[in-house]
Amino acid sequence: MNDFNKENALVLFSGGQDSTTCLYWAKKQFKTVTALCFTYGQRHAQEVENARHIAKIAQVPFEVLDATIISYLSPNSLTDKKIEMDQEHDDNTFPNTFVPGRNMLFISIAASLAFSRDIRHLVTGVSEADYSGYPDCRDTFIHSLNTTINLAMDKHFLIHTPLMWRNKAQVWELADKLEVFDLVCNETLTCYNGIIAEGCGECPACKLRNKGLEEYLESKKQ
Amino acid sequence: MNDFNKENALVLFSGGQDSTTCLYWAKKQFKTVTALCFTYGQRHAQEVENARHIAKIAQVPFEVLDATIISYLSPNSLTDKKIEMDQEHDDNTFPNTFVPGRNMLFISIAASLAFSRDIRHLVTGVSEADYSGYPDCRDTFIHSLNTTINLAMDKHFLIHTPLMWRNKAQVWELADKLEVFDLVCNETLTCYNGIIAEGCGECPACKLRNKGLEEYLESKKQ
Repeated sequence: MNDFNKENALVLFSGGQDSTTCLYWAKKQFKTVTALCFTYGQRHAQEVENARHIAKIAQVPFEVLDATIISYLSPNSLTDKKIEMDQEHDDNTFPNTFVPGRNMLFISIAASLAFSRDIRHLVTGVSEADYSGYPDCRDTFIHSLNTTINLAMDKHFLIHTPLMWRNKAQVWELADKLEVFDLVCNETLTCYNGIIAEGCGECPACKLRNKGLEEYLESKKQ
Repeated sequence: MNDFNKENALVLFSGGQDSTTCLYWAKKQFKTVTALCFTYGQRHAQEVENARHIAKIAQVPFEVLDATIISYLSPNSLTDKKIEMDQEHDDNTFPNTFVPGRNMLFISIAASLAFSRDIRHLVTGVSEADYSGYPDCRDTFIHSLNTTINLAMDKHFLIHTPLMWRNKAQVWELADKLEVFDLVCNETLTCYNGIIAEGCGECPACKLRNKGLEEYLESKKQ
């Protein structure tokens, strides 16, 4: 791995706070970086256009794959506008924004694409620290998946998860260190209601993002 | 697992020799069985219609999922008619019918669908005995994938691979034991050139199927 810094990486990229921070993290680590975006019946097609816009700012190639198949796999509020989104949920159940195995499918698809491009590094913004009850954001899952994709294709892939142990405040801190705090603040789309930057302020994603931002800004004052 | 025989199963089903044998195997093991078929730019759309026909004979529900996404992931001769199929290949390389991670994607998608249906048993006809160089047919891979899907969805799935250690002659033997030898012989589609039953006789799939059939019929004489 002497030439670690010289290799190519594929970043799973939605144009949100987390994957934008990951994109810039990857730009520091690898020789070339490609941003891979999935469409799958998101509430806002605008999400893809915003991701394309950020990739252009970052000067990395941007690719879109149609993963509509995952919207057929289960009823859930992220892909079906007729279902009202859970604002709060019981700690013992999954939130109804849960698409079962979504990260498993996205990362597996990315690995298959990487195989044909001779790319071995995959980067994803999953985090166990603020994982909202999604089991496929956990570190144990990622390790298991890494072994599985290596066995599936007889190739040594590496899944990188730079945000795994960072809470949202620490993700803001990383963006700041990577000198993209303003970009992440002003251009990324995290809000489930499709409002760029500050968001609606009411959905679970906005609450998590804004709480983290306040904590980070507070910690800088001290 | 006392009620093992009473549970529901999802069978990954293409209407070929292997998955048809698995479908009837599953009918003996489980209370209800559903056949799941994927479309993904196969050379012959007829494959899906033939699968539907066999599922009807077997009296099991038949579902089709559009997995066209996998045809975008790499150039290969199964999904791209412009590429000539390898008739023979070097033992140290993959045949060019290889879709990287195809079984990983199919089984992962099936697991996600199973989650939403409260199904925990998945059945697939992969075999390490006659695996044609595909790494995602190996038993080690299946075990790793089983762990990964369980972690991805915090649920205990079981992937069943009744053909894992059977060569093609032994798959014919199993079909015979399940009393579907004639059905498998006359109705299934294995041929890469889309010819039902006896096939073209020339493609790698036909050669494997016919060699196994000869061996099995020979063994019955003894």
